Amino acid sequence: MSGFFIRAFGVFVDVSLIISIDAMGGDHGTRTTIPAALDCLRNNPNLQLILVGDEQVLMPLLEQGLLEFKDRLSIQHASQCVAMDESPAKALKNKKDSSMRVAINLVREGRADACVSAGNTGALMATARFVLKMMPGIDRPAIMSSMPSIFGHTHVLDLGANVDSSAENLFQFAVMGTEVVKALENTASPKVGLLNIGEEDTKGNEQVKSAAKLLENSHLNYIGYVEGNSLNAGDEKVDLIVCDGFVGNIALKSIEGAAKMITSIMKESFAKNALTKVVALMAYPVLKAIKDRIDPRLHNGASFLGLKGLVIKSHGGADALAFKTAIHVAEVEVEKNVIQKISEQVEHALSRRENV
Amino acid sequence: MSGFFIRAFGVFVDVSLIISIDAMGGDHGTRTTIPAALDCLRNNPNLQLILVGDEQVLMPLLEQGLLEFKDRLSIQHASQCVAMDESPAKALKNKKDSSMRVAINLVREGRADACVSAGNTGALMATARFVLKMMPGIDRPAIMSSMPSIFGHTHVLDLGANVDSSAENLFQFAVMGTEVVKALENTASPKVGLLNIGEEDTKGNEQVKSAAKLLENSHLNYIGYVEGNSLNAGDEKVDLIVCDGFVGNIALKSIEGAAKMITSIMKESFAKNALTKVVALMAYPVLKAIKDRIDPRLHNGASFLGLKGLVIKSHGGADALAFKTAIHVAEVEVEKNVIQKISEQVEHALSRRENV
Repeated sequence: MSGFFIRAFGVFVDVSLIISIDAMGGDHGTRTTIPAALDCLRNNPNLQLILVGDEQVLMPLLEQGLLEFKDRLSIQHASQCVAMDESPAKALKNKKDSSMRVAINLVREGRADACVSAGNTGALMATARFVLKMMPGIDRPAIMSSMPSIFGHTHVLDLGANVDSSAENLFQFAVMGTEVVKALENTASPKVGLLNIGEEDTKGNEQVKSAAKLLENSHLNYIGYVEGNSLNAGDEKVDLIVCDGFVGNIALKSIEGAAKMITSIMKESFAKNALTKVVALMAYPVLKAIKDRIDPRLHNGASFLGLKGLVIKSHGGADALAFKTAIHVAEVEVEKNVIQKISEQVEHALSRRENV
Repeated sequence: MSGFFIRAFGVFVDVSLIISIDAMGGDHGTRTTIPAALDCLRNNPNLQLILVGDEQVLMPLLEQGLLEFKDRLSIQHASQCVAMDESPAKALKNKKDSSMRVAINLVREGRADACVSAGNTGALMATARFVLKMMPGIDRPAIMSSMPSIFGHTHVLDLGANVDSSAENLFQFAVMGTEVVKALENTASPKVGLLNIGEEDTKGNEQVKSAAKLLENSHLNYIGYVEGNSLNAGDEKVDLIVCDGFVGNIALKSIEGAAKMITSIMKESFAKNALTKVVALMAYPVLKAIKDRIDPRLHNGASFLGLKGLVIKSHGGADALAFKTAIHVAEVEVEKNVIQKISEQVEHALSRRENV
């Protein structure tokens, strides 16, 4: 990788931090990806970005940026674009020169350390899996993200890459997720919970019960079963919650729905009449503080795990702030060398099991 | 049934409305069950209640009530109590004279039309299933409840009676749930959605995909897949959402966690300093109106469906208002003859299939 070097503890260390951006992806395309990219370059002098998309479109929009950031910013041409509702199979077959595909290619070729896209999830996962291939020892990829909680936030996987995950899949998710939480939270031994419908041993389906046994016998900091409320507001902090993608996706969307309903009822109630509108005006700073605490834009950026390279998925409807958060997730995961660490941990877990 | 008769359309109709109450169940026992019961008797002159529990405890507490409501209120002695954390198997084996068991016995014996308990869910389900038996044509029981939504509320089942529901189970849940929604909402043809991780045909696990086919070919008003956000805030109103109990329970608890987190952040933000406290005081009526809209006490009362009798489960931590809501669910389901209608619909669905 064409990274640069810093001297640490007497040795030179590669701190290459090159991220490819699918500049055309998402509901708003370049209107969010470009301002977010430029802002990230401003904030992190070590960062290099490759914006992937139609050169004709990108060049005029990046004129100023190319001057400002010189060799830290470049454009990689891609003639096609994957539509937000395009089927993964069609995108894979017909869009070999899409901004999404080319951005992922850069990771495979070692020209970028990670890729960020707000493009359609199915196509991005299918393309990433096809181009980058699975990491040895991992059977299925998983989608991992964080969500706000009373304690700060909770990391969760899988959020929808799989349905019908086996106990072994869930165990692998826990191994991978632990490394990501360590990197993002700077915590030595993240607490891992297994999502279930009760905390007693007898509760749950066979996959969850068997996964619990694998986790109990592992080197992970497994704390046991947790219920759905632990995602946002359990009795104690859990750093990482592991579940099947069908369950995780429905939990995530259910929480989004609950937040939307409460926000909608609040808006309606405060807009009811002249008096409530005055109250809303006075309460504005407090209401703003509440909104900021649970702002989903600050939790944007889902990691695709289990692949031989790093891909971060931004929400399709992301604005510049949200897209910046997703790029930041990529920066931290590259800086902390998450892929390498996952790979080591997977090997470690496999060899532990062989030795038992 | 020892009901009473009214003359309607020239004929006498049995409008028996006798409900047995597990007076000792729940976190607060008689402190919530008794005031709730008396209030319900006050509100509905057709209602008769049998309070089940230790006579020695109940008699002094009900002295006034027995005078006020005469033959509409009675006590049925039960010497035991099921603890909130007692295992279902143990409760079934060792607590044959518990208030929970005796209250359910009254339904089996035809002395009550339904039973309401705030006791522990597992024990209540196990006991209800053991005492009342399954309805012919139904393979597994399901737990159904409503939750607030932007459109009013949404009914959901199963919320945790089962894990690993088959397509046929999900179909049966839809048949049963439809009858309950008809009764509770006075709607002729409730819209039924199947909970999934996307709205496209290709999404989901095998059980959900096969259930979709059964529902498409049924007489039900099936509208297709819905996602987790539809529970509280979908794009269009869906009356009934059908899912496996593992998924439904986790969605429900996730929503509870989200609501708890938002409430907790609101409290904290409004209590931050003297100024925010003044704002909170001014905003009180609006905040109260918001709280009332999503008050879980107004959605208390989960129906156990698929049994040969009606059992309504109240939240264990219910206060008197919440417990009243649960009794009210029982009243409506008895008045609308839900058990009879479910049984007819199950027969109808089975014979339709045989004729295909």
